Amino acid sequence: MNVNVLRLDHRLKRDTRITTHVCLTARAFGASKIYLSGERDAKLMENVRDTASRFGGNFEIEYSESYMGVIKKWKSDGGKVVHLTMYGSQAHEIAPEVREDGSDILIVVGGSKVPGSVYKAADWNVSVTTQPHSEVSSLAVFQHLLMNGKEFDLKFENPVLEVIPTAHGKNVNIHNENR
Amino acid sequence: MNVNVLRLDHRLKRDTRITTHVCLTARAFGASKIYLSGERDAKLMENVRDTASRFGGNFEIEYSESYMGVIKKWKSDGGKVVHLTMYGSQAHEIAPEVREDGSDILIVVGGSKVPGSVYKAADWNVSVTTQPHSEVSSLAVFQHLLMNGKEFDLKFENPVLEVIPTAHGKNVNIHNENR
Repeated sequence: MNVNVLRLDHRLKRDTRITTHVCLTARAFGASKIYLSGERDAKLMENVRDTASRFGGNFEIEYSESYMGVIKKWKSDGGKVVHLTMYGSQAHEIAPEVREDGSDILIVVGGSKVPGSVYKAADWNVSVTTQPHSEVSSLAVFQHLLMNGKEFDLKFENPVLEVIPTAHGKNVNIHNENR
Repeated sequence: MNVNVLRLDHRLKRDTRITTHVCLTARAFGASKIYLSGERDAKLMENVRDTASRFGGNFEIEYSESYMGVIKKWKSDGGKVVHLTMYGSQAHEIAPEVREDGSDILIVVGGSKVPGSVYKAADWNVSVTTQPHSEVSSLAVFQHLLMNGKEFDLKFENPVLEVIPTAHGKNVNIHNENR
């Protein structure tokens, strides 16, 4: 199952940090690519690419002016769409169904206002707890459920920086050969 | 097990949205209280209190000038401390141990730079995936692991707004008696 993420309605300055966290969360929890829509933010994309290349793997980031174009293309290629919204069905009930479906999954993460067309286009509208919190935490927990915890075993190939889990302090392998 | 969260080194403006998301994530995933340190941000605290009171429950938010004071008090009261850091031990290996320990848990969420004293004071330094992503996603996934998924069944008492999970559209019960 290939997982991509689509971030709606990015706004320059106001959303820079949240959208950066959405991108890095998508990558860390196993998505291979994120599409950004809304205002084009070249600096943010450069920063995410830079972090991703230092920590390894093949994460992609692409700007798309038309989020509905991304959704339609995904569906016409045979993929299915999960839209994360506080109002959707409970994540822990839906995630196993999505996983067993086996289709490639586009996870849509909202901005300030999400049009009804996104709710309609989604195969699943999914809520993480039905409480207000964050698109970052919703994405992380949904990806965690979808991966069934396998994100903890992901290997990111050819990293420059490789963090070695350690109880106290910091332990980072530096692979200069991957620079 | 009572869970509280301590957010280090909040900076006005720059961190407003991320810290707000940290607060709401803490609440949604079962923490009863968050302590904020760094720059005092009355507006942020008011906004979080307002959201929390509309969606129910008894979530508390308190500013503390001394994060180390909060940590020391927590430990002297018999609680234990989890510090979330990219460099720590893997979350899925540590969460069951923390849960079985049964102590009240203070989860410390870093800011831009975390002093060595926090690493030392922590009973567990814990990493969620060892990849860079977000304090918001780290907190959510660690709380999810700690709660063993029970956050999906939490009841927030006396809400004004109660979201009813629904496959398409929005379904919100409005309890005017709780205003």
